[in-house]
Amino acid sequence: MAQPLFSRTPLLTDNNPQATRQVLLDYFLDTFDRYESLFDTLANEEAYYKKTISLRHPLIFYLGHTATFFINKLLLVHLIDQRINPRFESMFAVGVDEMSWDDLNDAHYDWPSVSEVKAYRQQVRHLVSQLIQESPLTLPINWQNPWWAIIMGIEHERIHLETSSVLIRQHDLSYVKNHPAWQPCLQTSQAPSNTFVAIPAGTVSLGKAKDAAFYGWDNEYGQHQADIAPFAASRYLVSNQEFLAFVEANGYQQSSYWSEEGWAWRNFSAASHPTFWRKKDNTWHLRLMTQEVPMCWDWPVEVNYHEAKAFCEWLSQQQGQQIRLPTEDEWQHLYQYSGFALPAAQQTHLANLHLDHQASACAVNRFAHGELFDVVGNVWQWTETPTYPFDGFDVHPIYDDFTTPTFDDRHNIIKGGSWISCGNESLPESRYAFRRHFFQHAGFRYIATNNSANIISSRYETDKFMSEYAEFHYGDSYFGVANFSQALATLGISYMTERPARHALDLGCASGRATFELARHFQQVTGIDFSARFVQQGVQLAEQGVLRYTLTEEGELVSYKERRLADLGLDNTRHKVQFYQGDACNLKTQFTGYDLILAANLIDRLYSPRKFLSSIHERLQLGGLLILASPYTWLVEHTPREEWIGGFKQDGESFSTLDGLKAILQNHFKLISEPQEVPFVIKETKHKFQHSLSEVTVWERIK
Amino acid sequence: MAQPLFSRTPLLTDNNPQATRQVLLDYFLDTFDRYESLFDTLANEEAYYKKTISLRHPLIFYLGHTATFFINKLLLVHLIDQRINPRFESMFAVGVDEMSWDDLNDAHYDWPSVSEVKAYRQQVRHLVSQLIQESPLTLPINWQNPWWAIIMGIEHERIHLETSSVLIRQHDLSYVKNHPAWQPCLQTSQAPSNTFVAIPAGTVSLGKAKDAAFYGWDNEYGQHQADIAPFAASRYLVSNQEFLAFVEANGYQQSSYWSEEGWAWRNFSAASHPTFWRKKDNTWHLRLMTQEVPMCWDWPVEVNYHEAKAFCEWLSQQQGQQIRLPTEDEWQHLYQYSGFALPAAQQTHLANLHLDHQASACAVNRFAHGELFDVVGNVWQWTETPTYPFDGFDVHPIYDDFTTPTFDDRHNIIKGGSWISCGNESLPESRYAFRRHFFQHAGFRYIATNNSANIISSRYETDKFMSEYAEFHYGDSYFGVANFSQALATLGISYMTERPARHALDLGCASGRATFELARHFQQVTGIDFSARFVQQGVQLAEQGVLRYTLTEEGELVSYKERRLADLGLDNTRHKVQFYQGDACNLKTQFTGYDLILAANLIDRLYSPRKFLSSIHERLQLGGLLILASPYTWLVEHTPREEWIGGFKQDGESFSTLDGLKAILQNHFKLISEPQEVPFVIKETKHKFQHSLSEVTVWERIK
Repeated sequence: MAQPLFSRTPLLTDNNPQATRQVLLDYFLDTFDRYESLFDTLANEEAYYKKTISLRHPLIFYLGHTATFFINKLLLVHLIDQRINPRFESMFAVGVDEMSWDDLNDAHYDWPSVSEVKAYRQQVRHLVSQLIQESPLTLPINWQNPWWAIIMGIEHERIHLETSSVLIRQHDLSYVKNHPAWQPCLQTSQAPSNTFVAIPAGTVSLGKAKDAAFYGWDNEYGQHQADIAPFAASRYLVSNQEFLAFVEANGYQQSSYWSEEGWAWRNFSAASHPTFWRKKDNTWHLRLMTQEVPMCWDWPVEVNYHEAKAFCEWLSQQQGQQIRLPTEDEWQHLYQYSGFALPAAQQTHLANLHLDHQASACAVNRFAHGELFDVVGNVWQWTETPTYPFDGFDVHPIYDDFTTPTFDDRHNIIKGGSWISCGNESLPESRYAFRRHFFQHAGFRYIATNNSANIISSRYETDKFMSEYAEFHYGDSYFGVANFSQALATLGISYMTERPARHALDLGCASGRATFELARHFQQVTGIDFSARFVQQGVQLAEQGVLRYTLTEEGELVSYKERRLADLGLDNTRHKVQFYQGDACNLKTQFTGYDLILAANLIDRLYSPRKFLSSIHERLQLGGLLILASPYTWLVEHTPREEWIGGFKQDGESFSTLDGLKAILQNHFKLISEPQEVPFVIKETKHKFQHSLSEVTVWERIK
Repeated sequence: MAQPLFSRTPLLTDNNPQATRQVLLDYFLDTFDRYESLFDTLANEEAYYKKTISLRHPLIFYLGHTATFFINKLLLVHLIDQRINPRFESMFAVGVDEMSWDDLNDAHYDWPSVSEVKAYRQQVRHLVSQLIQESPLTLPINWQNPWWAIIMGIEHERIHLETSSVLIRQHDLSYVKNHPAWQPCLQTSQAPSNTFVAIPAGTVSLGKAKDAAFYGWDNEYGQHQADIAPFAASRYLVSNQEFLAFVEANGYQQSSYWSEEGWAWRNFSAASHPTFWRKKDNTWHLRLMTQEVPMCWDWPVEVNYHEAKAFCEWLSQQQGQQIRLPTEDEWQHLYQYSGFALPAAQQTHLANLHLDHQASACAVNRFAHGELFDVVGNVWQWTETPTYPFDGFDVHPIYDDFTTPTFDDRHNIIKGGSWISCGNESLPESRYAFRRHFFQHAGFRYIATNNSANIISSRYETDKFMSEYAEFHYGDSYFGVANFSQALATLGISYMTERPARHALDLGCASGRATFELARHFQQVTGIDFSARFVQQGVQLAEQGVLRYTLTEEGELVSYKERRLADLGLDNTRHKVQFYQGDACNLKTQFTGYDLILAANLIDRLYSPRKFLSSIHERLQLGGLLILASPYTWLVEHTPREEWIGGFKQDGESFSTLDGLKAILQNHFKLISEPQEVPFVIKETKHKFQHSLSEVTVWERIK
């Protein structure tokens, strides 16, 4: 591999346009050409068209894809205004997420020839080169700068450099060949015995600022802090040798070592050893990118998350202590503790990273980083952390689905990079995540700790109705209409005057905003909703302080929202609220003794509002307040016609819902304010809103 | 009938509260007691409980009903705040519209005894008397005055005085008895031969002002003018003698004399002569209210509208000229021509009206009014006019279903009053209407004319969706959002500059407002909608200048709206617009050559917007404008997913509807303005609105 160092992701803080153009041009060409050279390891034309794994396109797609990506993004930022080859650019646009088991249909594709694709790549190469040299450039290159798309295109190609190398490694041997530019490491030996290194307590502070020095993907920005309890980390990544003990202990056959999801994968895949291991003549071999070699026992084992986790569980039982994978936070702490630092741009990494050494892993005891080895590089390290957005997360406007589809608590973060992780991938700030069953050049380090992994849920609420309510409760104002839940809580509190403020009930709390708002005044507030999914939103906010959801903008296009209690000044109410699933028409006996009960937009959604209204006094202190708010939108799908309490002719006269409320409540309540209309707005799309008026009445329990 | 004159409806312009109290008290007691005395003609208790006709309650209901009506209305205006007898007041509240064939269920009723009801009436009598004497009174008594409810209650009871007398007349003879206070006329003779009186042309101006001198029902207020062509009117109401010729000519057996609706009634009822005629021993007799007498040939025949109309058709064929019933306008003209005037309050009517003479009809040649007889009184006179609201019609807030249910083009107006029509009923301004098959003390006068009857449709649009659009196009503004159709038309016109303004197309015109608005500028405007019902709204506005609809307020409660082109300054556009049903995706070839095409909120409701957009240039002049407005609310129920033109990811990138519009239209159009958002609001209920933003783009056809 007597090649010059593969160029590093450029510093964005340079203020010399001409120098920046040159750096970018080098970075682009270096990447573009190195990517193409990877395909020189394919043995024949057929290798481009035969799928390596069933859920991914064949390699011909990936050859075209990284070029097309430049065109698509440059169009979006208006650095160019027309396509080079619309047919290719449609065909090569959309890759396949490893999550999708059923949307690949070969019939849709009539791939062009390799030479056609290579010619297309030359057109793109020429166009981007010219752009970099001639297009107007204003520094710095930041998120808003159209040139961000150029770096994005390069970094995107570097990702595919690695993922394509994995696909090639998964190809049948007959389709690949050795190549001088892609030579693996030739050294192997006995594996070292793993030992623990004690890692002291500490804190980590993650997340980049928008003006950070290097390009980052959306998920790297924002803030996150964590305190780390002390733990012990394995000095080395787990080697093939160390993992063999698990295989030989029938680890792949014992469901007790595996998580439920992991065992399902094991059964589906029928795996009995790591995917790149091959047993020939009863001897283990190792599949590298272009060849099979006798097992390199001192190299890191490469497994998916499930296998790593099963190994840890087995080891825990062996050692009688909790062994697990580190979290992202723990990995960062370990990284800081190691003292490893990135080299200057022109220096070689003292790690098996960035193609600085060879085209494969190497022994786990080759690169020492402080007391540990392979803190970065060699192979990626699985973590316990499903990827999630840092506080202040935003999608980048020209690539809004880079990260967001992985915010599903099913994609775990891998850290440290592998021998082929280049550019952004090689930075400790990067946050790549894959489905837990997926294979990359990835292995693991384990830790011993008494603490369980701190998992932060990242799920985006995508159900349209639930998302609309999340936005209604915690989102933006529209048409100048103030937040409804806040307005109701404030109004309710204003009527409390000198009344005791011990316990309030928010009945039909939906996403729970009023529950939190009431907790500004009350010692304790209970939120109850019929929908367990609504209750979960409140619970999540109380526990994690954050709620994430997508909002429909137009058709199938969505935007990504994140709302935090802290930003609403509600962080100190978190410990005062509780949420329960419950039925307002049939409330459990424990829910009683309240000083205030709020029923916001509830009564016209109950199956029997009369049942609710005629017994609700039993839950309220004498002198306590009942706040009813409703647009009186009676619909038979919620409330059978015979259960409506108003909104019809009764004995020949118009009988309004307010008439009905008065008739039912008069036995126990006094109406202490004239009805007032409080507006609310629910956003359905960028262009469509429900704009309603809720009639609010305040009732005091008098007997 | 040596009784004092039955008190007249009071003058409302009196400014002496004490005198007014006295007048009202007299009017109330006189009515209340006379009504009760009518029931003295019932022969026994059973007569109260046995139904006289199947579609009405038994008379016991009507005895209670007029008392309960006072309580209900007094509660509504807060002159009282509690009920006297909730059970009675529920039972006696709702009468039965003669339209309802199926909602009477005897099982629901367990009627109280006559003495119980009479005792209840005494309670009401006492309460209302006290109110009139003691309740605060501010003059004048107008619509807003709570005392309006008192007069309403009295006038309501006077209506039931007449309708109950009809029910008694329809009762079996065994249930009724003669009574000194309710003696019929004893005089009868030969009927006079009918002749024609020439009525010259003229104009009528109908409709009361809100500050009119006498109480009126909602349908009497507003304005209506009409020019009346000369016609000839029969001097007398049609007598039993004159009608006999029709009966004997087998008029009831010849479908050709009958309207379709009339013939259906004839077949259903198997009628072969007027309903109050009885044939005994081959001799005709006449059923009066409490007895049967030998036929009074010179008295007016009493029939329903269908029978009257069939007679006219028969007579037309006999005479070889068009004979028909007068319209309401023609009746008013005839009334004015007659010179008849109401007498002073203390004087007897020179007409068989207001119980001033006896409790039955009398000879058609007894009361001369100018050249004519019985212009008012004796029996009601059917007209050709289905009742409809005058311009400026409003419902009275405490009785919103007095008239509105009859605005269905199926209730015809009767004029002139009968011998028992008292109070408001006796005034020529009153506008009572009944289903055409219904019987009252009603007959007819016919006219000879070459003009067809001018019928004004009164139908209220009650379909929720259609009504919402009517309000959206022609109704009030909400949240300060300007009328959308007007805003779009104005915007479109502003882009026309010096372009020819010959012909515009409003495609997807819905209720048609923009069609009219565009006609302010264009010589001619065509409105096209896929929905024939929408098109009908535009047609009706163009033809009649008015659109009526109900709006849902809360649950089943509705309000009644009337919108007029004239009030919107659009009256002079009526002759410039045309409406057609049509399919924007498959437009007939005749629709072409336009200078402007507006498609407002259309494209996201088409089954193939691409088909529409890719061919619409063919309908536009070169240089003409295409105005598109849409909230881009793509829904699969309107547009199959594969037909969406944007609002999805395409080749991996967000592809908005605007992107789609540009892609499709670029071959023939130039976008000549940046997209702008125009808001619109659609009211669903009093408390619920859709509030949307429509993105407007203006395109010039360039090739």
